Amino acid sequence: MSDGRRRAIGVFDSGVGGLTVVRAVRSALPGEDILYLGDTARVPYGSKSPRTVERYSLACQRFLLDRDVKLVLIACNTASANALPALVAASQVPVIGAVEPGAASALAASARRRIGVIGTLATIRSRAYETAIAARDPDAHVVGLACPLLVPLAEEGWTHGPIAGLVARRYLSELLTLDPDIDTLVLGCTHYPLLADELAEAAAELAGRPIAIVDSATAMAQAARAALGESPSEPRGELGIFVTDASRLEELAPRFLGERVKRHELVDL
Amino acid sequence: MSDGRRRAIGVFDSGVGGLTVVRAVRSALPGEDILYLGDTARVPYGSKSPRTVERYSLACQRFLLDRDVKLVLIACNTASANALPALVAASQVPVIGAVEPGAASALAASARRRIGVIGTLATIRSRAYETAIAARDPDAHVVGLACPLLVPLAEEGWTHGPIAGLVARRYLSELLTLDPDIDTLVLGCTHYPLLADELAEAAAELAGRPIAIVDSATAMAQAARAALGESPSEPRGELGIFVTDASRLEELAPRFLGERVKRHELVDL
Repeated sequence: MSDGRRRAIGVFDSGVGGLTVVRAVRSALPGEDILYLGDTARVPYGSKSPRTVERYSLACQRFLLDRDVKLVLIACNTASANALPALVAASQVPVIGAVEPGAASALAASARRRIGVIGTLATIRSRAYETAIAARDPDAHVVGLACPLLVPLAEEGWTHGPIAGLVARRYLSELLTLDPDIDTLVLGCTHYPLLADELAEAAAELAGRPIAIVDSATAMAQAARAALGESPSEPRGELGIFVTDASRLEELAPRFLGERVKRHELVDL
Repeated sequence: MSDGRRRAIGVFDSGVGGLTVVRAVRSALPGEDILYLGDTARVPYGSKSPRTVERYSLACQRFLLDRDVKLVLIACNTASANALPALVAASQVPVIGAVEPGAASALAASARRRIGVIGTLATIRSRAYETAIAARDPDAHVVGLACPLLVPLAEEGWTHGPIAGLVARRYLSELLTLDPDIDTLVLGCTHYPLLADELAEAAAELAGRPIAIVDSATAMAQAARAALGESPSEPRGELGIFVTDASRLEELAPRFLGERVKRHELVDL
């Protein structure tokens, strides 16, 4: 496979939220070049049907494979939950989704084996976390809840304060009704880490005990390191950003990536 | 143009929100057949760039024109604000957007000629309401604010209560900072009428006086009646619903249309 040229890690997401995964990968594998594709013209995937999510995801992956990436990271939980088998079948390089690493981290964090998962409508409907966790531990108990307001809250930047607190409380009290005994909460969407403080506080307050918070970005970065085996020793690899629609990228990217986006390219899939 | 066959009114929107316009048209013109297209696979348009909104809108209109509609209603404020000239140029039948009728209603309601407009990011950025109102009354003063959380709030069904109230207050206090003297508020998005109670209450409370609430659905229905001149005398026309992705239509449609959707067809644009 290797011809001596440096090949990048490809990361795609329905929008800009996947930049939280890029941030984790750059921290774990600083020397790697990364190509990021955000399908911002068709964001969000989370409210779309499995068939549509699969179709769009395949187009995103095709774009990255055409640029000769050596590994594909599906930063979008919705795409991971609905399109992983199709994406794996269509790729000659390894493909890592968000769900498997997130499920493993959740099991590592949960002493009681009682786990709550929050995500988009499509992620929760897919029951992908339930399936992935049950495959590793059939005795684990998983409940899931779709939280459609959390993505726009994170994008609006209202990540702390009374509105974020009330919304977190409303969703998590519903989740705790489904299982009052969870000890671990999986943030099953790349946007949710921005709301982690309010979610952790609301969960602990409603449950009357601390709840471990797991997000899949760090777990995905570890899985990428394991899959690659070796990594360039450069201090800082290059980051190329492609989007299908430029709207709001400059404004939103710093919140998710932790730095400003200097350059990006608009592409049509 | 007329060959004796009954031709329908075509209505399109980025999603299901435009069913509030269908509801108003069915009330004003009960005998008319209506074809509705919701581009639910690519919803929302409100966060997308003008170029992308125009491209998607033209595809929606093409779909309706191919079905020989006699009139096109752009139920989506974002599409009206960004794509009306292109849509008019591409159509042989009359095209009515949401902005012009909404602007006329706002001027009719505003004694002070001071108007606030809330809508999606793309609608507000387009300054379409400012332009349409200024064309009718150069002395009128218009301020606009994008309110990205209102669409998911309406879709979640959280249209009343503390969260809706806090979000309405947060946005409207920002709008009133831009102009403390507005006496009229235009709901520049098809989703917002579901939140009209909370918005009216918050606006009145923050301004210390009643604020007139204008929504464009009723105004569009009146414009459609004027454009058609005559209308079938049947007690109840037929309604055909097409969507580009079926996700959540059954759940959301009754809130917007006021009745259950018995049948719909999935199409690819």
